[in-house]
Amino acid sequence: MTKKNKYAIGVDLGGTTIKLGIVTNSGRILKKISVRTQAEGGPKKVIGNIISGINELNAKSKYKIEGIGIGCPGVVTPGKGIVENPPNFPGWEKINIGKIIFQEFNRPVLVDNDANAAAIGELTFGSGKNYKSFIMITLGTGVGGGIVMNKKIYHGDFGAAGEIGHISIDYKGPKCNCGSYGCIEAYAGNQYLRHRVRHQLKKHPESKLWKIIGNDLSKVSPRNIQGAAESGDAFSKSVIDELGVYLGSAFASLVNVLDVSVFIIGGGIAGFGKPLFDSIKKTISRRVMAPIRPRVRVLPAKLKNDAGIKGASALVFHHN
Amino acid sequence: MTKKNKYAIGVDLGGTTIKLGIVTNSGRILKKISVRTQAEGGPKKVIGNIISGINELNAKSKYKIEGIGIGCPGVVTPGKGIVENPPNFPGWEKINIGKIIFQEFNRPVLVDNDANAAAIGELTFGSGKNYKSFIMITLGTGVGGGIVMNKKIYHGDFGAAGEIGHISIDYKGPKCNCGSYGCIEAYAGNQYLRHRVRHQLKKHPESKLWKIIGNDLSKVSPRNIQGAAESGDAFSKSVIDELGVYLGSAFASLVNVLDVSVFIIGGGIAGFGKPLFDSIKKTISRRVMAPIRPRVRVLPAKLKNDAGIKGASALVFHHN
Repeated sequence: MTKKNKYAIGVDLGGTTIKLGIVTNSGRILKKISVRTQAEGGPKKVIGNIISGINELNAKSKYKIEGIGIGCPGVVTPGKGIVENPPNFPGWEKINIGKIIFQEFNRPVLVDNDANAAAIGELTFGSGKNYKSFIMITLGTGVGGGIVMNKKIYHGDFGAAGEIGHISIDYKGPKCNCGSYGCIEAYAGNQYLRHRVRHQLKKHPESKLWKIIGNDLSKVSPRNIQGAAESGDAFSKSVIDELGVYLGSAFASLVNVLDVSVFIIGGGIAGFGKPLFDSIKKTISRRVMAPIRPRVRVLPAKLKNDAGIKGASALVFHHN
Repeated sequence: MTKKNKYAIGVDLGGTTIKLGIVTNSGRILKKISVRTQAEGGPKKVIGNIISGINELNAKSKYKIEGIGIGCPGVVTPGKGIVENPPNFPGWEKINIGKIIFQEFNRPVLVDNDANAAAIGELTFGSGKNYKSFIMITLGTGVGGGIVMNKKIYHGDFGAAGEIGHISIDYKGPKCNCGSYGCIEAYAGNQYLRHRVRHQLKKHPESKLWKIIGNDLSKVSPRNIQGAAESGDAFSKSVIDELGVYLGSAFASLVNVLDVSVFIIGGGIAGFGKPLFDSIKKTISRRVMAPIRPRVRVLPAKLKNDAGIKGASALVFHHN
């Protein structure tokens, strides 16, 4: 088997850390490192750090590298490797990372938005393997999305497609940091969720969550909510159920518009597990037309740790 | 010019009437007829009526017909001509209309959902000519939708994509006849609109609409609302403005998900004209990210009368 292995470098460009790994075409990480992003130093600094990271990773490497995949924040021009205005990267407008890294290493370089890379990761190595079309959602600080249609990422005309987090489920709902109202990110994004639960918890003095957080509201977190729910706390269970209603309502609109009925969910909050997935599925089923219901699937992402590195490397294997 | 013309037959299959026409490749109707659908007679009867309609239309015709395009309700299997469960067509499950009509006339037969045919009509002859990607919405009894991506209809895995009318803008909103809540059809569909306005009007004794409807609430209609708005009635203006907020909110979600920023709007209620279009555009602009705003276009459909026949014929010209 080892003889048939192919190898790629996956680069997960984050706001504070760049994670890099050598990954096999079956999704196994052979070696990995982290370097600081130093985004405040501007694009030259960041790209210099990517290059020295790749050099460090690849030093004395015995692997023939097929290519380098980079997952990064911001809008990526489809097929061009140009990264536009990644949030929290000052001094950055449009930079052709793909071209610069190619010139340095003379290997194919594939660049995509991190949420799209996560989707390609699931398609290549994970829960999306057996599906032609699915929607990947990553629940974290924000709510990232990637749309896979016919085994390819749907990028849209300008590379900005897939912003599932900014589907509004209530046009008069809570203000989202994107400027709109009622986006699911404004319900399911980590900070929004904590904020809402802190507020709701005050009306539930009976909740076991109080004990878990030691009566300190600043300690409300997805992990603590999950802990309370698992110990049977009705309030915490209702929080998870409600989150499923929010997400499921947005997903039902997507089913109706895109005729895609498979949803793969990753990121920290996906750790709520079965109760969350059941609530999402029940909500979608109630809100889409009867013939579609049997096709609806809501699956946990398979790639957990190092999903960023694996997804980025999958850009290379998927392209070949 | 006439020498270069090509000709197709467009068939607009409706619940009560089948409209048929011979259409040039520049979208001009040379001859048209209507026959009764007799949907209650089951699929054999309906298809018999289509066939005799085509025969009647084409009798003594001097035109060489390139093909036959059929726009019909229900879900159409992409590229197969199979029509599934059209609403209000009893006794129908899956019928391969395309094959049956082909066997009868031995000309290429292209079948698509009527909302998709309307979109292809605008792409071929109308407001969509200069755009690679756009979303077509037809505002009538229902709210129909067609998604054009890269000059092609996006059908989805099972042909059920494009149900723009069933994007929910309020997960706790009014119940829609599809079973979900807060779908834009439940705000903008003709009956829903009339119902809501009747209800709201009671709180506005000062509205000029009362005079136009002769104090008879059953006479509330889009045309009357438009008349009152044009005569300066603040209440009727607010109804049109509010409708733009509903539609614009749904469209903003679509922009974020699909990165498509051109919307073409047809159907009776689109007759509200500029005030409606301005409100939709303002709402979208407020709800999508700043770099996308300059790309947003909200355009009236160009095909008005006989849009169904022209759209169906466009299926043929677009395919060739």
